[in-house]
Amino acid sequence: MRGAWLTDQGCLDLTTSILVTRRLHEEQTPYQHLEIYESPRFGRMLVLDGAVQTTEADEFIYHEMLAHPGLLTHPAPRRALIIGGGDGGLLEETLKHPLERATMVEIDGAVVRRSRQYLDVISAGAFDDPRARLVIGDGIAYVGDARERVDVALVDSTDPVGPAAGLFSGEFYAVLADRLTPDGVLVVQSGSAVYQHELIAMVRRNMAPSFRVVRTYAATVLAYPGVLWSFTIGSLGRDPLDVPSSEIARRTEGFGLRYYTPAGHDAAFDLPPYLRDAIAAR
Amino acid sequence: MRGAWLTDQGCLDLTTSILVTRRLHEEQTPYQHLEIYESPRFGRMLVLDGAVQTTEADEFIYHEMLAHPGLLTHPAPRRALIIGGGDGGLLEETLKHPLERATMVEIDGAVVRRSRQYLDVISAGAFDDPRARLVIGDGIAYVGDARERVDVALVDSTDPVGPAAGLFSGEFYAVLADRLTPDGVLVVQSGSAVYQHELIAMVRRNMAPSFRVVRTYAATVLAYPGVLWSFTIGSLGRDPLDVPSSEIARRTEGFGLRYYTPAGHDAAFDLPPYLRDAIAAR
Repeated sequence: MRGAWLTDQGCLDLTTSILVTRRLHEEQTPYQHLEIYESPRFGRMLVLDGAVQTTEADEFIYHEMLAHPGLLTHPAPRRALIIGGGDGGLLEETLKHPLERATMVEIDGAVVRRSRQYLDVISAGAFDDPRARLVIGDGIAYVGDARERVDVALVDSTDPVGPAAGLFSGEFYAVLADRLTPDGVLVVQSGSAVYQHELIAMVRRNMAPSFRVVRTYAATVLAYPGVLWSFTIGSLGRDPLDVPSSEIARRTEGFGLRYYTPAGHDAAFDLPPYLRDAIAAR
Repeated sequence: MRGAWLTDQGCLDLTTSILVTRRLHEEQTPYQHLEIYESPRFGRMLVLDGAVQTTEADEFIYHEMLAHPGLLTHPAPRRALIIGGGDGGLLEETLKHPLERATMVEIDGAVVRRSRQYLDVISAGAFDDPRARLVIGDGIAYVGDARERVDVALVDSTDPVGPAAGLFSGEFYAVLADRLTPDGVLVVQSGSAVYQHELIAMVRRNMAPSFRVVRTYAATVLAYPGVLWSFTIGSLGRDPLDVPSSEIARRTEGFGLRYYTPAGHDAAFDLPPYLRDAIAAR
């Protein structure tokens, strides 16, 4: 391959194309079509069913922003649960906190296998952390059966079609809320802030009955179509907006973060009015 | 046209494509190739030399963010100068402030003419405001010859190639600084925050000798390739970070803003560490 364009059809009328120079791997797993590409701009990229999931160059943005706002909303998390996140980047960010254990439940073992083989800089050794526990299995079934309660649950899913559809339902959020400790926090990626306002509104509606506070925040994930991406947090305890900057600074000291900052925490929740209105209108 | 893709080649290895359904106008002006398209996502779009300049649906983001941070950094602007900005969107935002006069110097009369013909919702009557003065001419020559001093100058240019190249030079910034009143403020669009770090660094270096404070801020302009866009402000007086939120709230009351907010002012200047570092490294 001398150079070809990988086009990520974010929505019907807006696409992003990234120049790729080599396809390192391709397979049809039992769940999805998995590819790994090399690109000059983003380094190696994991592509599932044609959609860019993560890249070496910008994975820290998505993973920092899915992990830290929620983990910091909980006053002192000891146990975390990750649903999805097979590339291990979210696990790495999560384990920067002084947890006892982080359990990751990924439905597709091939994603973990190929990420460890080709994208090991993304997990950066997190799979070998003695506090990490990896379960290859269905996240919905796992949560339904789980006895152990966790302080923070993070859902790093693909788009709400195919294997991930159930991860966006009110039923799943209710069961998850039931598996959280009293100050428990759930965070999910809730889609493009540019062209999935309906999805964001649905996630918020589905979370509302089970959580005391529901808040949506955004980050600019460079390799994703539309760039501006949303995350939604449900908290049984503290409001994410009540986390003092000084506490964020203290608890993230030495983490080496490159996107998330104490000031950026509040800013991420402060959606521009046009976006807040567009979500509220759905 | 049943539907075609307009591809904006932001940089060599990343492009954005927007579905367009109709080309309403095309002409070669003395300065550039001008097209106006209709698109389902962004409404009508102005395209110059193949690059999307502004769209009906998201123009408010770019224009609010080019106008208000600088106009608010000045404690009480009375006169403003706009270089470029032929579509009139920046003029409209600027005239929301209680100015005596806003002078707009656009090199390409065809941009004004066709914008007024096809994109009148963007200027929203601003060209007919008695405080507006339109000059069709070269911005660099105009500033060189100008006698009148202004409080705030805003440079709404195309990319730093072709007619706009000189608008990014240190010489131009020095002459502009000389035309500003003592608390004067200059704001320029300084390119993509994703793939033009070198340009941003150059703008900052070129401004530094002529201004007391130079600061770069970002906004998410949905129709631009890479989405995350940068603006750089040079101030002879107040630091943009010293504008109190309460003053922003008071001075923008009734403006009907959809992106810029008092909290968003500070947040826009708080670039994520990876971006700050990438710019500093150039």
